[in-house]
Amino acid sequence: MDRALDTHTGTAANADAGTSTDIDAGTSTDITDIRAVSAPARVAGPAEGISPEEVALAARNHGLPLEALRYDVTPPGLHYVLVHYDIPAAQAADWTLAVRGRVRTPLSLDMATLRSFPAVTHRVTMECAGNGRARLAPRPVSQPWLVEAVGTADWTGVPLRTLLAEAGVEPDAVEAVFTGADHGVERGVEQDYQRSLTLADATADDPEVLVAYEMNGAPLPPQHGHPVRLVVPGWYGMAHVKWLREIALTSTPFTGFQQSVAYRYRQSPDDPGEPVTRIAPRALMIPPGFPDFMSRTRVVRPGPVTLEGRAWSGHAPVTKVEVSTDDGHTWDEAELHASEGRAWAWRTWRTTWTAAPGTHVLTARATDAAGHAQPLAQPWNRGGFGNNLVQRITAVCLPEGD
Amino acid sequence: MDRALDTHTGTAANADAGTSTDIDAGTSTDITDIRAVSAPARVAGPAEGISPEEVALAARNHGLPLEALRYDVTPPGLHYVLVHYDIPAAQAADWTLAVRGRVRTPLSLDMATLRSFPAVTHRVTMECAGNGRARLAPRPVSQPWLVEAVGTADWTGVPLRTLLAEAGVEPDAVEAVFTGADHGVERGVEQDYQRSLTLADATADDPEVLVAYEMNGAPLPPQHGHPVRLVVPGWYGMAHVKWLREIALTSTPFTGFQQSVAYRYRQSPDDPGEPVTRIAPRALMIPPGFPDFMSRTRVVRPGPVTLEGRAWSGHAPVTKVEVSTDDGHTWDEAELHASEGRAWAWRTWRTTWTAAPGTHVLTARATDAAGHAQPLAQPWNRGGFGNNLVQRITAVCLPEGD
Repeated sequence: MDRALDTHTGTAANADAGTSTDIDAGTSTDITDIRAVSAPARVAGPAEGISPEEVALAARNHGLPLEALRYDVTPPGLHYVLVHYDIPAAQAADWTLAVRGRVRTPLSLDMATLRSFPAVTHRVTMECAGNGRARLAPRPVSQPWLVEAVGTADWTGVPLRTLLAEAGVEPDAVEAVFTGADHGVERGVEQDYQRSLTLADATADDPEVLVAYEMNGAPLPPQHGHPVRLVVPGWYGMAHVKWLREIALTSTPFTGFQQSVAYRYRQSPDDPGEPVTRIAPRALMIPPGFPDFMSRTRVVRPGPVTLEGRAWSGHAPVTKVEVSTDDGHTWDEAELHASEGRAWAWRTWRTTWTAAPGTHVLTARATDAAGHAQPLAQPWNRGGFGNNLVQRITAVCLPEGD
Repeated sequence: MDRALDTHTGTAANADAGTSTDIDAGTSTDITDIRAVSAPARVAGPAEGISPEEVALAARNHGLPLEALRYDVTPPGLHYVLVHYDIPAAQAADWTLAVRGRVRTPLSLDMATLRSFPAVTHRVTMECAGNGRARLAPRPVSQPWLVEAVGTADWTGVPLRTLLAEAGVEPDAVEAVFTGADHGVERGVEQDYQRSLTLADATADDPEVLVAYEMNGAPLPPQHGHPVRLVVPGWYGMAHVKWLREIALTSTPFTGFQQSVAYRYRQSPDDPGEPVTRIAPRALMIPPGFPDFMSRTRVVRPGPVTLEGRAWSGHAPVTKVEVSTDDGHTWDEAELHASEGRAWAWRTWRTTWTAAPGTHVLTARATDAAGHAQPLAQPWNRGGFGNNLVQRITAVCLPEGD
């Protein structure tokens, strides 16, 4: 973090300028500028397959194996993970979280002190803002998610507003800026990972933002922010800053890279775009039957097949899930289970399909109480964010006895 | 498992026949044969990028984020995972493991009974046989690993030979066949995942094969075989059958799909090939400095930089790790830490590099006591197995103060 060149402004000249920079890995060159090692954002060409760089990200990060939708609460190793830079070598024993900036009493909290505040637990469905990116045409080049970048966990910690009340927020504060310990370079900008929330979002009753130190009743695993992270129910994953080391209250809006350059809905590099915030509704189905290893095509047998899964939205409760077994030509409403008071966690849905021999495309579509429904044709944006196009599962029903 | 068509012979006509089958996902067709939903093995064309099917596998499965080489024992969520079909909905409470076939007393062991046998713990480095596959040219189309499909865990359980002694192996038994609960289709063959070991390998003193129910002191996570799996120290991952439900002693060698069709070193589809067994030596380096998000290029500063990592071999102890900071032109021997009596776990190595401004390719090369050394140019095989070509890390050293 000491080496940060441009952490707070985040507007290096070539960020998202639309051209590519090549490093010749075999030779020593006269590179003297960090921007030369870090290419601008780009969109894949029409016939361009997924690149080795995208595969390197896909091999590090991972989604929820879709059969793991069966668990109400996702085991930590199955919950999606997206790490921008490296997982820091962070340890609870010597960790401190600073609360500073426009506060009356700056705080420096070790883990024992954090744990001494009254704790709460929220069940929260978290999804990567880039989920669905690899299904877009043209494809934004980045972590190539299909539909699986999601998970639901019980997060335990201190409400952020408790800590802010303890520090005493000055009247001129407008935002809280959260800094993680993960350090890297992105589109030419060296940075610690940082995001902000407005003071209203940071101190809201519902969703209540948490400074969380447990996941499913155990200390956070390294990849989920050990020892402490932010949890912002209803928001895409970029807001839930991991390895949280500082909360700074500011009197001006934060304009850092992850807020002003990345995580914007843009149509072109020079489009200022709209900020990515809350999770668009999505339903996912547990793929029925059994899979082919390579294609993930499903095999089912004729007769009744239970189709079930989960649905969520960061805008409002999911109120309807429709299921199609003919690739969206016709739809039937599924049974939707009660939310059990957990407004920010996925809901279970279920229906029965009578499978007949042949090839079928199964899909599910969520609608929330705010009237948002999953699109059947995907709008496009340059970062590949908020893509909630309906899932398509190919299932082949083979005759009995084959 | 009841639906298995061809579990034991595994030689469906189109398995690995070298052609591709297309499912038109949008239409209903007259498919009546499971082989039509499951394409033969193939090799990518010269200009073919990584396909959506390979990305779907990469999004489900995951490797070790290379910075996690820092942990002596890999946290479960960071250990590599490769699941052929679906993770079964297996629960310890109603699990039974059968020991049957050519034994005097067939056994049916619940988890409490398994835990009543004297337990042992072995620290084992496990690696996927397909690690390195996506770096091959031409690229075999399957799970696209680069170098990261590895992890080291403390596995606790009952020695397999204890259970076999309890059952009493008949004199004509030659192999033990292990069946997992994961069910799917692969290259036209519907199957439960199955592998065998010869009786000599199954009952050896060292490496001692385990029927394991704990990973790092906790019950196995779902993706690592909950509640019980095989651990075969020194062997590639395909031998460590997860969700283990049956051990059958047989009087003839097993010829199932995963033994006779998959996991062979072949040059062509009709080459019978050699079986994939033990892990070839490999050294991996913790990437120094910090990364660019997209390219994973590393940034370091001038001066001394610690280069460190781990090295392992399933054939014999690693005896030497050499490091190059000029893309293999010159090599220096690294300091290699003691194995601390753990013959089947990785060893730590370390050296210091004096970085100077410019672009550098860092690499490490392991040699074991049996004389196997990592290749500098990769031999090719059609399945992409046992690829232990040296890792290459591009690091850009920027001048101080930039």
